[in-house]
Amino acid sequence: MSIKSPYLLFIGDVSDGLAAKTAQGVVDWRPERCVGQMRMDGCGADLGIPDKNIEEGIAAGAKTFVVGVVNAGGVLKDSWIPIVVEAIEAGFDIASGLHVRLQEVPVIAEAAEKHGVQLHNLRHSDRTYDTGKGTPRKGKRLLAVGTDCSVGKKYSALCIERDMKTAGYNVEFCATGQTGLLIAERGVALDAVVADFISGAAEYITPETDENNWQIVEGQGSLFHPSFSGVTLGLLHGSQPDAFVVCHEPTRTTMRNVPNALPSIQQVIDTTITMGKLTNPNISCVGICVNTLALSEDEAKAYLAKTGEEYGLPCVDPLRFGAEPIVAEVERQFGK
Amino acid sequence: MSIKSPYLLFIGDVSDGLAAKTAQGVVDWRPERCVGQMRMDGCGADLGIPDKNIEEGIAAGAKTFVVGVVNAGGVLKDSWIPIVVEAIEAGFDIASGLHVRLQEVPVIAEAAEKHGVQLHNLRHSDRTYDTGKGTPRKGKRLLAVGTDCSVGKKYSALCIERDMKTAGYNVEFCATGQTGLLIAERGVALDAVVADFISGAAEYITPETDENNWQIVEGQGSLFHPSFSGVTLGLLHGSQPDAFVVCHEPTRTTMRNVPNALPSIQQVIDTTITMGKLTNPNISCVGICVNTLALSEDEAKAYLAKTGEEYGLPCVDPLRFGAEPIVAEVERQFGK
Repeated sequence: MSIKSPYLLFIGDVSDGLAAKTAQGVVDWRPERCVGQMRMDGCGADLGIPDKNIEEGIAAGAKTFVVGVVNAGGVLKDSWIPIVVEAIEAGFDIASGLHVRLQEVPVIAEAAEKHGVQLHNLRHSDRTYDTGKGTPRKGKRLLAVGTDCSVGKKYSALCIERDMKTAGYNVEFCATGQTGLLIAERGVALDAVVADFISGAAEYITPETDENNWQIVEGQGSLFHPSFSGVTLGLLHGSQPDAFVVCHEPTRTTMRNVPNALPSIQQVIDTTITMGKLTNPNISCVGICVNTLALSEDEAKAYLAKTGEEYGLPCVDPLRFGAEPIVAEVERQFGK
Repeated sequence: MSIKSPYLLFIGDVSDGLAAKTAQGVVDWRPERCVGQMRMDGCGADLGIPDKNIEEGIAAGAKTFVVGVVNAGGVLKDSWIPIVVEAIEAGFDIASGLHVRLQEVPVIAEAAEKHGVQLHNLRHSDRTYDTGKGTPRKGKRLLAVGTDCSVGKKYSALCIERDMKTAGYNVEFCATGQTGLLIAERGVALDAVVADFISGAAEYITPETDENNWQIVEGQGSLFHPSFSGVTLGLLHGSQPDAFVVCHEPTRTTMRNVPNALPSIQQVIDTTITMGKLTNPNISCVGICVNTLALSEDEAKAYLAKTGEEYGLPCVDPLRFGAEPIVAEVERQFGK
């Protein structure tokens, strides 16, 4: 999937920022690709970028109208449909992270056909892939894994990409989920791929590259999550990482949406190495990324220091304090 | 997916028995559900059951016309299409293990619509599932895992089902692949499910049952196969087995379709326990199933004896010599 930027980010009349988190992720990481936000009356979210209507979005050079909303059921509200059609008539491609496929709404399908624009369903995968082969590929890869789902794997990967770039590495963020796709402009929503092709799609996302280029791969799920472990293992084997970071949220008591206890960081390190060796015998942990949002600054610093010492690895909140210690560990282990 | 039996098995004009292996699997394991085979001129395969045409199949009570063929590309040959249409007109449901969906052939789709019959695409999954939850369920489960793909996991599971039934257990074979589906009449082709729902589909296949009932679960892939490990792990976590057997083919030097070396049986035992503990802390190995087809009887017996001694577990070729030692181990570990 390849999505043209810049974007006009549509967030409709959602009630709060959480419901606009797909759009917010793009603004946080690729503000230069966002010409503005488009909100309806009563919208309770604000992405902090200029409000623009469809005409102003086109005038500002935007190419894709992004429905950057998440909601229960993943539906396109009736009141949003005429606006999407208007965007199509103005020449926008449309990208949606909703569960419903844009093509399933007849007026949208007809308008897209008539105006020759593309409809991107970020949560669906209509492409077929080869099965994974596990063949070693040139280039270096770093994968974010986690003690659970939704612990900050995407943000950690993006922070590491940013800080490795600053340190002079050739580096590219590789998207495996819907928000990541908008940030990277390409990638595959791995959880939407047919099961036989998980590792094949992961190989497609992380192709051979120059020997010293780094691909920073957005992680999915957890090897210890009973809902999504299959996707996680297929991604680990397909992306054949040289390096990985373990992402963790210290206040969580059970795994997301299930009653299981979280594994320890050590269990995740050990299991990732044991399983990852299949396609990269030299796989190695380069650090721990902790989402300390729920902790005060003092608590966060104490937690990071203690955990880093316990594991003998750099331990950071990359969003709050930067990922430089992890970049230094990459340089120590792999050179520059 | 629920498929009505008995079946009329159509194998067209395939050149040899290997191309008819889906149909052969059903004849081997559920001969009572097969009223006959239907072959075209020039067919080089023989399932060893009576030849019947469509009319004779209907007269014998068959409900589903099974296209029991595998071929490169998974296509429905042009010369078969009128025969499938004729079967529909006679009132048959159609089941196909080909890659092409029956609905994609317009004359078949029209005939099915007109005559109100069902079209089953065994390799596709159009149903949606919940995500897996990992919640413990009543009943006992035995999963066949392997050192590789295509090492006899399905046949091992079916032998164990047969021999546990003979020993007086309440036991049910749970299908996770296309041939298994025809044998079990229900199940899910797991490799065709959307990746997010692998473990959820595995939970659907192995629902809660009476405390002493055993579900014998067809395995898929291998935790050590770089193409299919994600499906294997999702199945392991979703089916939450109490017991497992490791299936192995002793003459294979590399894993199927990839250059990787096979893991040792010990690696498969250890990794299956390490990973399986997530949804069943008491998971335990009850034996090793070896496909000794390539060995003489003496060689086979020597290999089985040596391997059994090495691992301290029953080691059998369940198809050649029976699975009774594994049933005895199940009784020793879990009672009756």
